[in-house]
Amino acid sequence: MVQRDRREVEKANLTDKRYPIKGMNVWTPYGWKIMQAIDRHIREGFDATDHQEVCFPLLIPEDQFAKEKEHIKGFDAEVFWVTHAGLNPLDVKLLLRPTSETAMYPIFSLWVRSHADLPLKTYQIVNTFRYETKQTRAFIRVREIHFFESHTCHADFEDAERQVREDYDILEELASKWCIPYRLLKRTEWDKFPGANYTVGVDTLLPSGRSLQLGSIHQYKENFSRPYEIKYEDEKGEHRYVHQTTFGMSERLVGAVVAIHGDDKGLVLPPDIATNQVVVIPVLAKGETEKVSNAARALRDELKAAGVRVHIDERDVRPGVKYYDWELKGVPLRLELGMRDIEKGKVTFVRRDTGEKSLKDRARLVEEVRSMLALIAHDMLARASKEMASGIATVDSLEGLPEKMIRTGWCGGEDCGHEIENRSERNILGTPVEKDEFDGKCVVCGKPTKTPVYLARAM
Amino acid sequence: MVQRDRREVEKANLTDKRYPIKGMNVWTPYGWKIMQAIDRHIREGFDATDHQEVCFPLLIPEDQFAKEKEHIKGFDAEVFWVTHAGLNPLDVKLLLRPTSETAMYPIFSLWVRSHADLPLKTYQIVNTFRYETKQTRAFIRVREIHFFESHTCHADFEDAERQVREDYDILEELASKWCIPYRLLKRTEWDKFPGANYTVGVDTLLPSGRSLQLGSIHQYKENFSRPYEIKYEDEKGEHRYVHQTTFGMSERLVGAVVAIHGDDKGLVLPPDIATNQVVVIPVLAKGETEKVSNAARALRDELKAAGVRVHIDERDVRPGVKYYDWELKGVPLRLELGMRDIEKGKVTFVRRDTGEKSLKDRARLVEEVRSMLALIAHDMLARASKEMASGIATVDSLEGLPEKMIRTGWCGGEDCGHEIENRSERNILGTPVEKDEFDGKCVVCGKPTKTPVYLARAM
Repeated sequence: MVQRDRREVEKANLTDKRYPIKGMNVWTPYGWKIMQAIDRHIREGFDATDHQEVCFPLLIPEDQFAKEKEHIKGFDAEVFWVTHAGLNPLDVKLLLRPTSETAMYPIFSLWVRSHADLPLKTYQIVNTFRYETKQTRAFIRVREIHFFESHTCHADFEDAERQVREDYDILEELASKWCIPYRLLKRTEWDKFPGANYTVGVDTLLPSGRSLQLGSIHQYKENFSRPYEIKYEDEKGEHRYVHQTTFGMSERLVGAVVAIHGDDKGLVLPPDIATNQVVVIPVLAKGETEKVSNAARALRDELKAAGVRVHIDERDVRPGVKYYDWELKGVPLRLELGMRDIEKGKVTFVRRDTGEKSLKDRARLVEEVRSMLALIAHDMLARASKEMASGIATVDSLEGLPEKMIRTGWCGGEDCGHEIENRSERNILGTPVEKDEFDGKCVVCGKPTKTPVYLARAM
Repeated sequence: MVQRDRREVEKANLTDKRYPIKGMNVWTPYGWKIMQAIDRHIREGFDATDHQEVCFPLLIPEDQFAKEKEHIKGFDAEVFWVTHAGLNPLDVKLLLRPTSETAMYPIFSLWVRSHADLPLKTYQIVNTFRYETKQTRAFIRVREIHFFESHTCHADFEDAERQVREDYDILEELASKWCIPYRLLKRTEWDKFPGANYTVGVDTLLPSGRSLQLGSIHQYKENFSRPYEIKYEDEKGEHRYVHQTTFGMSERLVGAVVAIHGDDKGLVLPPDIATNQVVVIPVLAKGETEKVSNAARALRDELKAAGVRVHIDERDVRPGVKYYDWELKGVPLRLELGMRDIEKGKVTFVRRDTGEKSLKDRARLVEEVRSMLALIAHDMLARASKEMASGIATVDSLEGLPEKMIRTGWCGGEDCGHEIENRSERNILGTPVEKDEFDGKCVVCGKPTKTPVYLARAM
């Protein structure tokens, strides 16, 4: 299955991995369009909740980076260092951002002065850099990462907690556009983001049985605002440190869409992501080519005017070749139009996700296409959610574990946690943020618990 | 005047220059929105002419960079070098792209195989890096540059020349949206882009009398395709090198908009760039606040529904404060609505560019707003074009030159050219690409010439 994921990416030509630096890939036109569609959704979601887009510099001076001790400990083995400019060494070494806390927070300390400046809600979409030492993989583990990060400052812990809940809501809406199921899992103390008070991972499950972290949401409390001195004057004139949160996601979203929805024929794109939601294929018969072409173009024009992203394939090749190409590219809906369809006032609809064919009334074209695209999106998410649910096994022993995501009991103690990880040969992803009824025992010490823990081999 | 340019940028808060690395500035929300509007125009212009957007890695291995000798000579004093990753030195040093020829062309040599792959027309919008040693200045001379670059490959020189002409056409349309006048000036041999066959600069004139290069268009011929081996098989089965062109523009466009259109009250944004094209200010009278507010909101709703970018300022501050704030931010059109306007069925229009007030019929609101925005755009470009024309002095001697862009005669010889630059204490920008009638003599050797040359002190 892992093999399959890889083949699809390559055949569909979303990225070119022949760039002469390992883990730094070229976004091809088609891959970049998919990434941009996802970015557009993210911008819509965060703009609608009063986040402001900013863009901070890529390079960070070493002394700024070093201010928060846990953070630097977590990252210093994987940053790229700029040591020279032109022909001379730099006085202060600069690093390529692995994430932007240490670039943004010295400036936040200038932007935040009074309670009237709060909450400060910002985000940016930028490239970040991490010197991965593990095997790199397109979209999933790369060294130059197309990255989304929101950074917020709040008057107190409670308001920061409200932000975390808002992030959950934004994510739910975004993930439904992408037809990606996920679990919100609170990471263990030893696996949280360096410098965070707590971290919630956004984990999905790939067909290979491995989990994939799509993003993470962090509550920082005052952990960064103290070293970076992000303070405000409250209504009573007292100076207080802000509480902060962040939310990060990356190009892994493209990897997840490819791996979760793809099949042996290639990509299957969710309608909200697809560059072309519909492809129109005129099925030409001898002597009638002009008539069919015109009818197909009229179809295209009508859909375009209605705001549907549609392409007509008028290449001089057999329809079978066209079907193959557009299936590979994952276009959600194919419309075939031949003389017989025209005579009956019909259009043939072919779903990419199921392969199902149906005849629809030409007169109700726009309506039928819209409802079909909505149905495809609904079914893709429902199917993927069902697959994720059936890919999770609840167990009360760590013996003979299936190749699935594991749900079991853990008392929450660190010793038992490490033992669970060692014996299961899996990582603890964490405990669920959302309601998840459970009544069991810690699989190591036997202590009763009402909260399950999720384990997986992570990608 | 230079002083003025600077103050406006700071007051309007488009960038924060307090980032702890010189020449690497923070894009604030408002500045970034303006940059994104410009990027959107660029994408529209290049997508419409069948260019494909791609995104190449930021880092370039030293050995790839070194392949084209002129190019590396032109850039090696100003590149940032990554020498370490994590705790270890890298085997091959990596540089931060100053421009992307050397990142893209090894991959182009894989993408281009046959004449059917041509023309290859690509572009990307990315951050580039140049270690400027001169005084840095927001948007104008920075070390991290928000950059647009198109890169194309063609079967022969003629097709590449067609591309250069297409670039001129795209630019003309874009610049009219930005209300920026410019001259296309072919650079001298000693000032062309390192590695280019020829370079055409896109030069505008700032109120300070200095020229600002907004972009450049390059014909490379086979200069890069030979070292990077970008070859194709032609219809006869012969292998030939492609001819290439590039077109680059940067965040200097924001600097030009600010400097050319701004006035003592702040920014003046062209309607196509403005985040808010219209701001609605309810002028509340005692006892009638509800009525005026509702009427103002109805106005906002009607404009919004018509696709106008509109904001209503309902803050609880005096109208004068609101006028001041929105003038500073450069919103092209202010609509004031008070009880008297409502009773007369009128709305007060105030133009940002001229300050002119007029009363318009409420019933024809959308139409009046649309035509006023078009008129503002037209007038802004016309005024700026006139100012640029009057900022150019045609002279036949280099004595006592005015603080303007200079147009004079040059035989085209390199010796005379250097002497012109030395004696005028200005740079030769180049000779006009477009029709520009002239009948004079080389200002140094006296040889007759029909082509003028432009000189300026460059920003």
